[in-house]
Amino acid sequence: MSQYDNVSVVKQANVYFDGKCVSHTVILADGTKKTVGVILPSSLTFNTGAPEIMEGVGGSCRVKLKGESEWKTYAAGQSFDVPGNSSFEIACDEPYHYVCHFG
Amino acid sequence: MSQYDNVSVVKQANVYFDGKCVSHTVILADGTKKTVGVILPSSLTFNTGAPEIMEGVGGSCRVKLKGESEWKTYAAGQSFDVPGNSSFEIACDEPYHYVCHFG
Repeated sequence: MSQYDNVSVVKQANVYFDGKCVSHTVILADGTKKTVGVILPSSLTFNTGAPEIMEGVGGSCRVKLKGESEWKTYAAGQSFDVPGNSSFEIACDEPYHYVCHFG
Repeated sequence: MSQYDNVSVVKQANVYFDGKCVSHTVILADGTKKTVGVILPSSLTFNTGAPEIMEGVGGSCRVKLKGESEWKTYAAGQSFDVPGNSSFEIACDEPYHYVCHFG
């Protein structure tokens, strides 16, 4: 599924890390909030409040979760889980397009 | 109105100018396509195919249309028209959030 249907989308973007990460907030019919976004080539550390599931929809990235020693690669069509109140390092060499689902 | 309701949104972003401009495509219930996007601090030249109306929803920018000699400043809540098959220069010092309407 390449798009969300019957949703609301907030016009103003969420801009993080001087624009290395840009997303728009989407609200599903049942009130669930998600973000559709892109991470530009960079190496960043994100902190989580709620648990997140990051779903790749284009490009690829390397991820190292807090407390782990190994980087894992995720491409479009793959997802990774991030615990709440944690952090993860993410690195990409090309734009990484994602949907972020909040747990 | 800070959001669009009852729309479809394409999950993959549109990335231009190495990420200096990132947008997501929104499709209204009647099939009309728009993009919600952000231009990061930069000075860029965009070419248009169809005529466009750029509606500012956050931040501000300076714009010089092809064939004009004067820069004009547009803030959130203001819009400017761009003819089809033309171009415009846009410069911003802060993220400029916009909705692009195609004519």
